[in-house]
Amino acid sequence: MSSPKLKVAIVGLGRMGSRHALHFHHLTPRAELVAVCSPNPSELAWATESLQGIRTYLDYDHMLREETDLQAVVVSSSTTVHAEHAIKAIQLGLHVLCEKPLSTSIETSQSVLIAYHHSLEKHPNQKVLCGFSRRFDPSYRDAYQKLQLGLIGRPSVFRSQTCDKLDPTGFSIEYAQSSGGIFVDYSIHDIDLALWFFGENSVLKSVSAVGISAISPEIERYNDRDNALGIVEFYGGKIAQLFCSRMTAAGQEDTTEITGTRGKLAINTQPQTNLLQIHDSTGIRREVAPHYYARFRDAFIAEANEFTTCCLDNTKMPFPLESAVKALEIALALQESMLTGKKIDFDQNGHRVASGDRLTAKL
Amino acid sequence: MSSPKLKVAIVGLGRMGSRHALHFHHLTPRAELVAVCSPNPSELAWATESLQGIRTYLDYDHMLREETDLQAVVVSSSTTVHAEHAIKAIQLGLHVLCEKPLSTSIETSQSVLIAYHHSLEKHPNQKVLCGFSRRFDPSYRDAYQKLQLGLIGRPSVFRSQTCDKLDPTGFSIEYAQSSGGIFVDYSIHDIDLALWFFGENSVLKSVSAVGISAISPEIERYNDRDNALGIVEFYGGKIAQLFCSRMTAAGQEDTTEITGTRGKLAINTQPQTNLLQIHDSTGIRREVAPHYYARFRDAFIAEANEFTTCCLDNTKMPFPLESAVKALEIALALQESMLTGKKIDFDQNGHRVASGDRLTAKL
Amino acid sequence: MSSPKLKVAIVGLGRMGSRHALHFHHLTPRAELVAVCSPNPSELAWATESLQGIRTYLDYDHMLREETDLQAVVVSSSTTVHAEHAIKAIQLGLHVLCEKPLSTSIETSQSVLIAYHHSLEKHPNQKVLCGFSRRFDPSYRDAYQKLQLGLIGRPSVFRSQTCDKLDPTGFSIEYAQSSGGIFVDYSIHDIDLALWFFGENSVLKSVSAVGISAISPEIERYNDRDNALGIVEFYGGKIAQLFCSRMTAAGQEDTTEITGTRGKLAINTQPQTNLLQIHDSTGIRREVAPHYYARFRDAFIAEANEFTTCCLDNTKMPFPLESAVKALEIALALQESMLTGKKIDFDQNGHRVASGDRLTAKL
Amino acid sequence: MSSPKLKVAIVGLGRMGSRHALHFHHLTPRAELVAVCSPNPSELAWATESLQGIRTYLDYDHMLREETDLQAVVVSSSTTVHAEHAIKAIQLGLHVLCEKPLSTSIETSQSVLIAYHHSLEKHPNQKVLCGFSRRFDPSYRDAYQKLQLGLIGRPSVFRSQTCDKLDPTGFSIEYAQSSGGIFVDYSIHDIDLALWFFGENSVLKSVSAVGISAISPEIERYNDRDNALGIVEFYGGKIAQLFCSRMTAAGQEDTTEITGTRGKLAINTQPQTNLLQIHDSTGIRREVAPHYYARFRDAFIAEANEFTTCCLDNTKMPFPLESAVKALEIALALQESMLTGKKIDFDQNGHRVASGDRLTAKL
Repeated sequence: MSSPKLKVAIVGLGRMGSRHALHFHHLTPRAELVAVCSPNPSELAWATESLQGIRTYLDYDHMLREETDLQAVVVSSSTTVHAEHAIKAIQLGLHVLCEKPLSTSIETSQSVLIAYHHSLEKHPNQKVLCGFSRRFDPSYRDAYQKLQLGLIGRPSVFRSQTCDKLDPTGFSIEYAQSSGGIFVDYSIHDIDLALWFFGENSVLKSVSAVGISAISPEIERYNDRDNALGIVEFYGGKIAQLFCSRMTAAGQEDTTEITGTRGKLAINTQPQTNLLQIHDSTGIRREVAPHYYARFRDAFIAEANEFTTCCLDNTKMPFPLESAVKALEIALALQESMLTGKKIDFDQNGHRVASGDRLTAKL
Repeated sequence: MSSPKLKVAIVGLGRMGSRHALHFHHLTPRAELVAVCSPNPSELAWATESLQGIRTYLDYDHMLREETDLQAVVVSSSTTVHAEHAIKAIQLGLHVLCEKPLSTSIETSQSVLIAYHHSLEKHPNQKVLCGFSRRFDPSYRDAYQKLQLGLIGRPSVFRSQTCDKLDPTGFSIEYAQSSGGIFVDYSIHDIDLALWFFGENSVLKSVSAVGISAISPEIERYNDRDNALGIVEFYGGKIAQLFCSRMTAAGQEDTTEITGTRGKLAINTQPQTNLLQIHDSTGIRREVAPHYYARFRDAFIAEANEFTTCCLDNTKMPFPLESAVKALEIALALQESMLTGKKIDFDQNGHRVASGDRLTAKL
Repeated sequence: MSSPKLKVAIVGLGRMGSRHALHFHHLTPRAELVAVCSPNPSELAWATESLQGIRTYLDYDHMLREETDLQAVVVSSSTTVHAEHAIKAIQLGLHVLCEKPLSTSIETSQSVLIAYHHSLEKHPNQKVLCGFSRRFDPSYRDAYQKLQLGLIGRPSVFRSQTCDKLDPTGFSIEYAQSSGGIFVDYSIHDIDLALWFFGENSVLKSVSAVGISAISPEIERYNDRDNALGIVEFYGGKIAQLFCSRMTAAGQEDTTEITGTRGKLAINTQPQTNLLQIHDSTGIRREVAPHYYARFRDAFIAEANEFTTCCLDNTKMPFPLESAVKALEIALALQESMLTGKKIDFDQNGHRVASGDRLTAKL
Repeated sequence: MSSPKLKVAIVGLGRMGSRHALHFHHLTPRAELVAVCSPNPSELAWATESLQGIRTYLDYDHMLREETDLQAVVVSSSTTVHAEHAIKAIQLGLHVLCEKPLSTSIETSQSVLIAYHHSLEKHPNQKVLCGFSRRFDPSYRDAYQKLQLGLIGRPSVFRSQTCDKLDPTGFSIEYAQSSGGIFVDYSIHDIDLALWFFGENSVLKSVSAVGISAISPEIERYNDRDNALGIVEFYGGKIAQLFCSRMTAAGQEDTTEITGTRGKLAINTQPQTNLLQIHDSTGIRREVAPHYYARFRDAFIAEANEFTTCCLDNTKMPFPLESAVKALEIALALQESMLTGKKIDFDQNGHRVASGDRLTAKL
């Protein structure tokens, strides 16, 4: 416990970036947030005021040059530059915690992985983590642990949904423009969970998806939808169904169920903001967390602390960076399937096969 | 209330048939169960003992000839003869309550519909109902009523599952042989609900399904699976995801959620056998209904009573027989998609289109 | 099953009387409701219309004289004449199902018991049951069975509440006038449950109660309150806490918990009218049964059927009539304690002891 | 945010003391834990290892003399010296966060209050807080806020319980010896909540309590019980029922309900350790927090942070120290009532009246 603190910088101070900054500054005892970077002066002003003693930068390269003591970078800039920012830090031998997704392009996300593998040769203790916050949530971890103990037998059917409360401001629609689409922005969490619970080495067999524009027809302009369903099939008898939505009424409803041969683990099937129930003339009700952060704040704080511990103590990362690339590949395939209306099949080597080929052969 | 009672006969005294018999005999005040028919003498012996004053028959045609006062027949024989038994009764002008599915073949189930339409010319007040018991369940009805009141806006995304408790005796696998498959035997209920909540006139756009044999590899012999997932897409922005399983651990878990543009209705997301919770050293638990009948007994009784009322008072049936045919068509398409691995697309006239044609054209 | 049906008459056709009438007429296969009696001609008109073939009487004695084939009487007249009506039927050797409470006076309720014991000499198979409907509720029965199986060890602490939805019409306040008070009218159910779960032979040690008039100050005119709390202590390490209220917002909230040395059984701690949950912008809610009958309808029907079976088959009653007298004694003591502000102590023979005597001696 | 940090010392490093130490050291950004004191060398060794840079003391007076920069003391020593330790710090003008209860004697707890009032003359910004952690729990705070907004009308009936999981080691029985008794050790939290929700100025009217020794007869040696029920009556139509237990099976079950004239707020009526539900052959279950800390950890951390903010920014304390004395008075009266078997009445000035006097006069 008497080791020196991990020196961390953050690039990007938007919605999640500012939260990461507060977590690393106040709630990560073994980390010291030394610098932040944002192209937005008002965000830097916020940082100066809220993060005592912080150094601020408008330019990322400038920060990397100046902060010569830096040990780790948290990348929470816009998704379009995640990979670029991550790679620059990786090439300097810095530890990196990069917000999800690594990129909205498979190639770009693979380039992060390649950069990391290359850098590992010189910096064998270097850590690069993609920020799948649910991996740090106590309920999911409890479920995973029970799965490992054999409580439900062999996990076989997975159901998961990421559903946001309707945002009447229209911001979420605008944001959709560069998000990579609803499967890449929303379901990637569920896909990551499927890989966790089914095993990181699960081999994709097929994806199929449909989507609608129930409340925001204008979202079709961005080749996206506001509600979508998907099926993901893995070789070896493992299937998953996904639901993503931008229009829940009660709040953030992120629910997951893992059905095994001997039992089921269900996470958040009764969403609730806390332990209060309200009895009034309309019945008995619970309120629901209004957004992702209200649901997963503790997980983000755990993520900051565990990332810090992994870097300082050179311990094993909770999950491999490869998973993040794999999750993106599946998400992009689902997005494509939703838009083309075609099911996409894969052979056991990960190559696409013409629709139906595999199966015709088999029957 | 002083009208004479509806004279009812039942054909088939298996698991559901004997229950129907008890419902009509004891718990349907306006009906009088006068005769039962089964090729199985021990089932008839049970009827003689349990159903005071009942007349029993080994042969269906014999019963129809003898029971000249008969007004209605409940068909709960084996699925393979549902249609034949229903058509014979229809042609005699009798009211019919036929267990689901009408058949495991589209053509055969359509022949029931045709027979009914033909008979209606001579017997305009004749009623033919397919026994989708969930339509009579108080929770589903409450949900439907609230939907009609506009509580959740426009229904857009539907999720439903029919999941049976693992049957360690292997009976359910043997039964699978003539059941038409898991989508026809299980999910047909969910499909029927989708048609109810989305509107009976919803037009099918596509189906896609996958399945696995998690616990009973031998089921593949019957071209079936023990767990399956499906997506059903309707024209007009309505999508549905289905899950059917033969292996839940806790009990019967039939859950449905209807997400609309302004809210969601969730039925049985917390399955429970009654209002008891048990606190012990493992936590707090609820037990779950062990099978379908324990969950839906009241619905079956309501079904018997409402069918009787419709027949006696010549009131509107709760839903058209066409729905049962439509549900079967969708179920069979899902079963096919699961087995072939191909998504199946339909045009707005209900004709299949070659996979991807519609969509290539559109893009 | 082929035995003749039990010939039943009902006296009193108010709220519960008319429901009993429908249950015995339509939903109790082994009973035949032959006659009803009410001083209210409009209630008799309702009966003639709703209960096909029923004979109606304005005068109870007249009915008893005329209906010479009668085997059983259901007493659901006004509480003030429960005992009188029950005793008259008992003395004729008829089976009796009497609504709770037997009376609002201990002496009067004991007189029913005495009449029954006397009549038993001549009619050893005669049955007299007090209508504690919760004894027939599936959730309570499940709890009791699990208690008997030893699931929670030795039952030690009991908590139970009977809470009615606020009645804005003021009817419930007027009704309070002759109800015997909130402990006699409401908590008697909870007391009966305590006797059931702790054992019918439990010996009362003390009662203590407080009450308030939160919404209906005018109720104090009738020596009553609209909310009250009580503690009941039994010899042998068994204690109970009670809550009764006339003002819940969401609906009928009748909740019971039995804590044993190894576990707890909790009934209806999450009240709900059915299995539907509604998600809207205020959160996720369940509606609650609006009144006692909506919660316990099935229990009343089971009560009618089991009473009928006991009478016809001469089987053991589900619980002794003595329990009803004992429950009334406790309820009246609580009501007195609430009004006087004094705790009331009892010795092991059931005699009151001056407050504190027992305990001073003990210390 | 750029103000210097609050310099804090902790006396007592037992179960809660060590947790407080970790909270102030790691999770209270505006505080700096500078010293700890314990008579137990192994606890100090733990501190040296776990709390980087901490100074340790075996003697409290020594610490107070040496730590001349100290601004605040957290008292989490044994209950018997809470008051002594608090008073010493108060007299030095230090801010104090004292674990509950201030003492197990009314006089001693009042002496803390007197010392504080006296010290305030010289140190008008001095803060003394009694650690009622539930006041900092998000669910209770949400409930309180909704109460303030008028959501449930006038709060009238309060129910609350503090129930610990059975401790098979017997430690909790030994601990009982100096705890002041189950009402003082357990229910004081519920009493504090009652004062919060009913208003700090509520005037006690009567208490009545009963207790049993269901699992630990030996606890009677310490004039205590392992399960107890109490009723607390306040002037002005406010009543409360309490339950405390040392023997729950599933875990910590601290539940509170506040019934108002228009609604009810229910906190933790469905205890759960997290959002996971486990489906297995015994049903569907949630695990329950095994102890108080697992349930209220976040509240303790919030307490540390808010206490720190109050001290640094001289803002209003969340509740007055008087409440802690008042809660103790009520708890001790309940404990006495449980042991003597006598109800205890109070007049509006807080003086005891002979049992029944007030009420005899009134009738």
